Amino acid sequence: MHRLVVVGAGFGGLSAARTLIGKPAEVTIVDQRNFHTFQPLLYEVATAGLESGDVAYPIRSIFGRADNVTFRFATVTGVDWGRHQVSLLEADPLPFDSLIVASGATAKFFGIPGASEFSFPLYTLTDARRLRDHILRRLEQVDADPALTAEGGLTFVVVGGGPTGVEVAGALAELLDVAVRHDGFRFNREDGKIVLVDGLGRLLTPFKESAATYAAKTLRGRGIELRLGRMVKSVTDSCVELDDGEQIPTRTVVWAGGVTVDSTIASRLGTPTGQNGRLVVDADLTISGRDDAYAVGDAAAVPWGPDPADSGRICPQLAQVAIQSGKHAALQAINRMEDRPTEPFRYTDKGIMATIGRRAAVTQFPGGTLVRGTLGWLAWLGLHLLYLIGFRNRIVVLVNWSWRYLSWGSGPRVIVGDNLE
Amino acid sequence: MHRLVVVGAGFGGLSAARTLIGKPAEVTIVDQRNFHTFQPLLYEVATAGLESGDVAYPIRSIFGRADNVTFRFATVTGVDWGRHQVSLLEADPLPFDSLIVASGATAKFFGIPGASEFSFPLYTLTDARRLRDHILRRLEQVDADPALTAEGGLTFVVVGGGPTGVEVAGALAELLDVAVRHDGFRFNREDGKIVLVDGLGRLLTPFKESAATYAAKTLRGRGIELRLGRMVKSVTDSCVELDDGEQIPTRTVVWAGGVTVDSTIASRLGTPTGQNGRLVVDADLTISGRDDAYAVGDAAAVPWGPDPADSGRICPQLAQVAIQSGKHAALQAINRMEDRPTEPFRYTDKGIMATIGRRAAVTQFPGGTLVRGTLGWLAWLGLHLLYLIGFRNRIVVLVNWSWRYLSWGSGPRVIVGDNLE
Repeated sequence: MHRLVVVGAGFGGLSAARTLIGKPAEVTIVDQRNFHTFQPLLYEVATAGLESGDVAYPIRSIFGRADNVTFRFATVTGVDWGRHQVSLLEADPLPFDSLIVASGATAKFFGIPGASEFSFPLYTLTDARRLRDHILRRLEQVDADPALTAEGGLTFVVVGGGPTGVEVAGALAELLDVAVRHDGFRFNREDGKIVLVDGLGRLLTPFKESAATYAAKTLRGRGIELRLGRMVKSVTDSCVELDDGEQIPTRTVVWAGGVTVDSTIASRLGTPTGQNGRLVVDADLTISGRDDAYAVGDAAAVPWGPDPADSGRICPQLAQVAIQSGKHAALQAINRMEDRPTEPFRYTDKGIMATIGRRAAVTQFPGGTLVRGTLGWLAWLGLHLLYLIGFRNRIVVLVNWSWRYLSWGSGPRVIVGDNLE
Repeated sequence: MHRLVVVGAGFGGLSAARTLIGKPAEVTIVDQRNFHTFQPLLYEVATAGLESGDVAYPIRSIFGRADNVTFRFATVTGVDWGRHQVSLLEADPLPFDSLIVASGATAKFFGIPGASEFSFPLYTLTDARRLRDHILRRLEQVDADPALTAEGGLTFVVVGGGPTGVEVAGALAELLDVAVRHDGFRFNREDGKIVLVDGLGRLLTPFKESAATYAAKTLRGRGIELRLGRMVKSVTDSCVELDDGEQIPTRTVVWAGGVTVDSTIASRLGTPTGQNGRLVVDADLTISGRDDAYAVGDAAAVPWGPDPADSGRICPQLAQVAIQSGKHAALQAINRMEDRPTEPFRYTDKGIMATIGRRAAVTQFPGGTLVRGTLGWLAWLGLHLLYLIGFRNRIVVLVNWSWRYLSWGSGPRVIVGDNLE
């Protein structure tokens, strides 16, 4: 039987492995976590709106009944192309006939001094839990010692004005509202300060200008300060310095400044890489120079499509791209296995969306039509719940959300860090 | 205003602080966690039946709207009786006029070699999460390398035949059932072995003999091996040795062997202690030798009641005792503050219950009436959900439970340990 290994159980790997259920291949999906993370909602975990479990789904629950798909809980350290083996940490290597690399990306700090050391990225569930614990501890510290407010104890700096940055900033404002209104903290809401920094002159660059204007207006209306067209020069444990010399005292810097594939497993494959270390792939998503391996999702420089007008155009690092490219690579592996020609990948743009908080979001449809405000938010809500279908989690997410929306008083603002014990 | 400090936000401290809402005292409840833990369901978290968040409730959400109750997130290190201050770790001390000590207990290892080092207690949420991660990792390890089964990779030893031990053993059997049936693990259910050890000749000592017989029969029917009347002699990272020389190769020892107050904060108060280090208290729950401090719950040797027939009788360490004694101490502090005489505590036995798993539990009412089987389980389920009322969590717990009960396929079997990253 043809052995097909899928590296990574994010959107790309999961989509590939699901496509292969029932196909004539012995599939192994390997991940260093035993769960899939619903990354678009990590910011809700980080701001205590959802539980960790609401966005984590055990991989075995997805493939438990699939005869030809096996989960392997292990850390991939590299690929031995000569022996056709995936190397694992502290375990025997996994042999393969075909390989699909869906190993994702990691936060990109652009070499800014102190950024990787003192800021909080938001790409994994552990990132989200650490950030949540950190934020809640800051609130407790300032409550016990109000003098810390002047030292940035209640100042939250978000770096990056893309969807993640906008979402985190909006959700932080809501967390502070709730903390003051329902949690008996003794500081005033005005003591809390949220600053969103982006090097470009506007927010939400993938969106139309009017979406950016709407987002900026909404965020400002919720008390969030914007520093657009400004770059972060350095980060320390108590301050962020911007390129114009402004010093912002803060104890919490959220890093939503983009991702890279550099220094991940994908960067150690020895095959060509492009911008941000993304693996270069051919039109059918085979890794450049190979005919037995594919790369998909954030790890790959996925081409938009074969049309001449899209020549050289690379897809953004979005869940939709990962899902579609994962499925495509799986189908091409089957095509090749059965001696059929492979087909080029073609991205189907289903639109993009970002939420700014309660009852405020922007959804941009492929034609360019924008829906914003409550309607945009409902569209965002519906789509995210829809994607969780098939996962038990959607019920819990629904209950959590509904309850929170109605009561505003009891999100999971629990500090669970192990260092408490 | 009279300053009243409550140490600990378990059942006892929470009950005391809730009783004091709106009373003429400035109340501070201090805990090293920012959440209350619903301990009776920790075993469900440990066996991946519930999420951490289902049994954790933010303390601030309970007292956020109470004007006279403040939460303080800090670790208590002792009490300075001379200055009337509670000492805190890395923070200024908390002055008090009255004090209620509800600092709980900790696992008791009876000095058995290796027990504290190699076994998993189940008293805090962190304990439960660590145990869950450990169990799920063992299943993954054996799946990757079946030879580990012979070395105890799938053997789970539970020490202690009280309600917690019985509950854990039953839930472990269910976890193994689900893992094999739905999660695609390659080992057989028969490879998994659960052994319950207790030094006494029977299970569930606080219950009538017939409850113990029922529990033993039910556990055996679910494949669990019982070693009753046997003591654990030593624990290592790969084996448990019993007093009759039997060696059980295992990688997982769950410690449900009882609790002690020794080495907790309560043990450092310099006031008299009794069996298991529990603080000696007078009939009205004041700490022996003090008139400004009370002790309640697991931390105290709570007297059963003032009737001569109950002379010297001490309450068991149960949630009900903590709840009732916490409330009583709060009322007596108010009585004394307002120059009224204090009243003796009187425990109202509301019955005890233990679940052995799906559709099997025993409930023993105060008169001695036993309800068992499905009816006992429904009583257990109803009571636990009832106790979560007022907490958002009950809805999530209900959804989780219902879903698990119906689907059997998607509990939160997620390994979230930080060492994954």
